[in-house]
Amino acid sequence: MAAPAAIPAEFLTLAKSLVDISRPILRGYYRTKLDIISKGDESPVTKADRECEAALRAAINKAFPAHGIIGEEFGAENAEAEFVWVLDPLDGTRAFVTGRPTFGTLIALTQGGKPVLGVIDMPILSDCWIGAAGHATTLNGDPVKARACAGLKDAYFSAALPQMFQGEAQGAHDRIAGAVKSATYGGDCYQYGMVATGFIDLVVEKTLGIYDYLSLVPVLEGAGAHITDWAGKPLHTKSGDAVVAAGDKRILDAALALING
Amino acid sequence: MAAPAAIPAEFLTLAKSLVDISRPILRGYYRTKLDIISKGDESPVTKADRECEAALRAAINKAFPAHGIIGEEFGAENAEAEFVWVLDPLDGTRAFVTGRPTFGTLIALTQGGKPVLGVIDMPILSDCWIGAAGHATTLNGDPVKARACAGLKDAYFSAALPQMFQGEAQGAHDRIAGAVKSATYGGDCYQYGMVATGFIDLVVEKTLGIYDYLSLVPVLEGAGAHITDWAGKPLHTKSGDAVVAAGDKRILDAALALING
Repeated sequence: MAAPAAIPAEFLTLAKSLVDISRPILRGYYRTKLDIISKGDESPVTKADRECEAALRAAINKAFPAHGIIGEEFGAENAEAEFVWVLDPLDGTRAFVTGRPTFGTLIALTQGGKPVLGVIDMPILSDCWIGAAGHATTLNGDPVKARACAGLKDAYFSAALPQMFQGEAQGAHDRIAGAVKSATYGGDCYQYGMVATGFIDLVVEKTLGIYDYLSLVPVLEGAGAHITDWAGKPLHTKSGDAVVAAGDKRILDAALALING
Repeated sequence: MAAPAAIPAEFLTLAKSLVDISRPILRGYYRTKLDIISKGDESPVTKADRECEAALRAAINKAFPAHGIIGEEFGAENAEAEFVWVLDPLDGTRAFVTGRPTFGTLIALTQGGKPVLGVIDMPILSDCWIGAAGHATTLNGDPVKARACAGLKDAYFSAALPQMFQGEAQGAHDRIAGAVKSATYGGDCYQYGMVATGFIDLVVEKTLGIYDYLSLVPVLEGAGAHITDWAGKPLHTKSGDAVVAAGDKRILDAALALING
């Protein structure tokens, strides 16, 4: 397969400037008492979420009016464009409402439905991963790399919540959790940043949306890590709700075998 | 019950100075590649843990040579003294080794086996809770208070790890998790700080040691919160491995009823 073309520098410049917009908004609401609106999925949605997405949309529209935007809060505009930004202003709302600093802002740019640029920003921790086709992934400007791990018995596994695995997915989770060295929970997008940085070997999750995972793909791939759906297929704007990410291809393959066996 | 006597100011002064010792040591090891030594309990133990506890012990011995010390790494010295410091230099080692900033340092002072002063310090997050008999609990110097919560159906529940509940304890966990509004996992000592600060309503945990919970008692009680063992009894140096903490007495009572029913 040919290496993907490097994405234009002005797209990266915009992505970085979006973080300067989202951080102060989310920091301003952190650990303040909020009215929580329940959605159908029972994920808490806050004023911070909405204010942040509106500000990001305005900046994208101003910089690249021909680009589309799909956001978790305000839906799709111009979604048939070649370049579409996919936004989750506040990934980890459960962490946010319980006063934990492990929530983030996720920003992806897709080209023809495939993620070509991704940002994982942790506004309270001041950690920002940026990945893009043709670039090495960085954490706060410094290159990061996933680590090698030969087998599941040596692997540190993580997932956001044990409750995300129901029905058949519960069996997949239990097989994984029983095979790894360590299973921890919590962290949302931060977990994937830690795969890209060589501290976590495997994340397996269900019930995700495109807002949750498209941004992760360039970050992980630019760090030498791997991320697919539960069938081992690349993630794009029409993928389902199941994701597996691993720092080492051997761990990805072993996890996929357990998930589907 | 008479209010406990306020503890001497010089004990508080030492407690605060201990944080100045532990923070730079743990920060120096954060997100570095470490050799992990497995202990019997399979909790990873790091060089950071040992170096930090040794430094804390030296400072306590210098300030109050008549006081006892019990530490997770190096055991007990002079444990029959009236005043005994109980140290967990690195609570949340699983978080630490997976690159998460939600680990902390726990420092308790006991008098006759009862906790009278407690510190929860988060070296990466720069959050420090201090609680002491006769003092209001503070977070970074500002007073904090637990929040009211009328019933479990409105409660945000948290525990460090779902795997900490085995056998009969699993049933207790499942009854709690089925009754609350939200269940999240991860966070170790930070969860208790968030009960004291009014963002989490209930923490129920098993498999803890005195290093894990004695420091929490003054922090929670000085914020108007409640913490007991699973029988509803106060925690002291001979308590078991089961803890329940709640911001509101109604939540404590409802949780104890479900745990024991």
